Amino acid sequence: MSQPLKIAQIAGDGIGPEVVGASLEVLRAAAHGCGLEYSVTEFPFSAAHFLETGHVLDDSDIEKLRGFDSILLGAVGGLPNDPRLAGGVIEKGILLKLRFELDQYINLRPVSLYPGIETPLKDKTAEHIDFVCVRENTEDLYCGVGGYVRKGTPQEVSSQTMVSTRFGVERCIRYAFELAKTRQRKNLTLVHKTNVLTFAGDTWHRAFKEVAEEYPEVETNYHHVDACCMYMVQRPEVYDVIVVPNMFGDIITDLGAAIAGGMGMAASGNLNPDGVAPSMFEPVHGSAPDIAGQNLANPIATIDSLGLLLRETGRIKQNAAAVKCGEQIGAAVKKVTPKFAGKNLDRSGYGTDEIGSMVADAL
Amino acid sequence: MSQPLKIAQIAGDGIGPEVVGASLEVLRAAAHGCGLEYSVTEFPFSAAHFLETGHVLDDSDIEKLRGFDSILLGAVGGLPNDPRLAGGVIEKGILLKLRFELDQYINLRPVSLYPGIETPLKDKTAEHIDFVCVRENTEDLYCGVGGYVRKGTPQEVSSQTMVSTRFGVERCIRYAFELAKTRQRKNLTLVHKTNVLTFAGDTWHRAFKEVAEEYPEVETNYHHVDACCMYMVQRPEVYDVIVVPNMFGDIITDLGAAIAGGMGMAASGNLNPDGVAPSMFEPVHGSAPDIAGQNLANPIATIDSLGLLLRETGRIKQNAAAVKCGEQIGAAVKKVTPKFAGKNLDRSGYGTDEIGSMVADAL
Ligand SMILES: CC(C)[C@H](C(=O)O)[C@@H](O)C(=O)O
Ligand SMILES: CC(C)[C@H](C(=O)O)[C@@H](O)C(=O)O
Repeated sequence: MSQPLKIAQIAGDGIGPEVVGASLEVLRAAAHGCGLEYSVTEFPFSAAHFLETGHVLDDSDIEKLRGFDSILLGAVGGLPNDPRLAGGVIEKGILLKLRFELDQYINLRPVSLYPGIETPLKDKTAEHIDFVCVRENTEDLYCGVGGYVRKGTPQEVSSQTMVSTRFGVERCIRYAFELAKTRQRKNLTLVHKTNVLTFAGDTWHRAFKEVAEEYPEVETNYHHVDACCMYMVQRPEVYDVIVVPNMFGDIITDLGAAIAGGMGMAASGNLNPDGVAPSMFEPVHGSAPDIAGQNLANPIATIDSLGLLLRETGRIKQNAAAVKCGEQIGAAVKKVTPKFAGKNLDRSGYGTDEIGSMVADAL
Repeated sequence: MSQPLKIAQIAGDGIGPEVVGASLEVLRAAAHGCGLEYSVTEFPFSAAHFLETGHVLDDSDIEKLRGFDSILLGAVGGLPNDPRLAGGVIEKGILLKLRFELDQYINLRPVSLYPGIETPLKDKTAEHIDFVCVRENTEDLYCGVGGYVRKGTPQEVSSQTMVSTRFGVERCIRYAFELAKTRQRKNLTLVHKTNVLTFAGDTWHRAFKEVAEEYPEVETNYHHVDACCMYMVQRPEVYDVIVVPNMFGDIITDLGAAIAGGMGMAASGNLNPDGVAPSMFEPVHGSAPDIAGQNLANPIATIDSLGLLLRETGRIKQNAAAVKCGEQIGAAVKKVTPKFAGKNLDRSGYGTDEIGSMVADAL
């Protein structure tokens, strides 16, 4: 019998508490049948909390979170133009801080068109849109390396540096090969911009080529990031698994979310695959303050992120009940999505809580 | 009476000579009626030329090109996996070298769905897809700034630096405001990633805010680059003019090409708006060696780039005949595209030369 799964909940701002609420309802409904024991502990980190207390997230908070098996995050972020939140204070102070401090070096973002969900692309169905992006999550332009010379003058120069390490790149690429190996098509595409980013691209390209030799069963491919965006719209069926550095991964996974039905559908996991610190799961969408508190938000992306949390954490922690529970939630989501057929996901007529109940009932 | 317009032609590799050939046929047909006098001088710079002679493009070549009013480029680039062309030797040695040395600081990329052309997006028509991207073209990750520490070891670190200068950013933003001012909607969106790229993004954001004060008639907006990719697929109609740094501009303009009918349709200009060096016009597509020499390539993007060449160079050089001729070519292209309705642009059944003749006839 496994230990109870300890989940830290960061519901966050805007629609965060609502979508997290709906997914916890699903968890309650699913856990018993799978023999899953778990606890949920709430943390207040959010833009609202920062504005109230001046506190973002400090080292002692990180230490507390280390005691958990996994983190479920709703969304953090305040009003778009609030000057008190300028310069990415919340994004950098909470989201990126957690990803970096907990060494969640894989950002796993499935791009799958679910039954009944509309894609904005003509002539594309579920069989054409079914791939996974493995985004490196702890390096690149996200390191915060940079600075100014003569700031505020006509001679101002600023720099912002993409840092790529063999260590960081290789562990990400290796994860992607391991994942590709388990898939039916066993196809892995590296996405970069090697013809222009000759240093960063070279570090990635060499690591990719060298690791590929250990995985002869995986077919490999390389696309420039600009071409990748074109293919995602014209022939998304070319992709099975994509491995991509952090910044380009941010871009292509939003595009991936768009072709797979939009932000209401996109789940993600920030993984520490070695299990030395908790992984964190979150919908790709933001806090959407404009529709917050009205029971309008679509919680599917968060429910699906919870499914991912249970599957991935279950694997890392060897908790079979969690894996089973995660699989059931994933399947239940796919049973429910046909009810959205022909509807606008953002104005489906179903309330946030109602969608939660629909998934719970489908378990 | 203006001086004859001196055009330098770099037909390049693969389909380059064919698409340039078709557009020069259009130029011949259009010039007389507009009273345009011009000359075309051929230059051999290309991957093929490099492989034959070891010569890419040196300072004396640049000096020769400075004597021209404008450059028409087909496409440069060899076979995708040719190891002799690795590390972007052609891209950096020809294309980027010209952009940088001739200080072509604006990359102008219209994204317009033409009559009869299919977009891969559902429910979107010409009225939804009609915007212009102003991509900064001489800074950012394209500077080539970077390096390695301990290359080839497990401790390898590489860096690649985004350089943004107030000077370079401001002139680009100013160009974009001037352009937005002339458009019906007068709407300008800055695309960046200010919440993560706090140095580069801040330089852009401050310059944008400050220049905006000089253009009270232009409505402004800001989108993160990841959100922008989503909007381009879900609601491209939000955009009128976009201003964007080089690397993100590379990515979103390929996506723009995809939603506006694909690479066969996307024209572009690398502008030196001050006219102190020639501007350069080129289709966004590459050399497509797989279909080269078979009269299969669609030359519309190159013909449209030629129209842009005449309009923009005409304005810079105050050559009214060139402007008129460019406008006529632009209009002729739009008269011809309905013939592609319901056809696959890449296999339209029309030969490259035939499409050239169709546009010439439509003048
Ligand atoms: C909010 C932001 C910092 C974040 C990122 O850029 O990674 C978001 O866009 C995402 O993709 O999770
Ligand atoms: C070929 C390459 C260097 C170039 C770029 O990245 O600018 C191309 O993608 C483009 O958009 O013109």
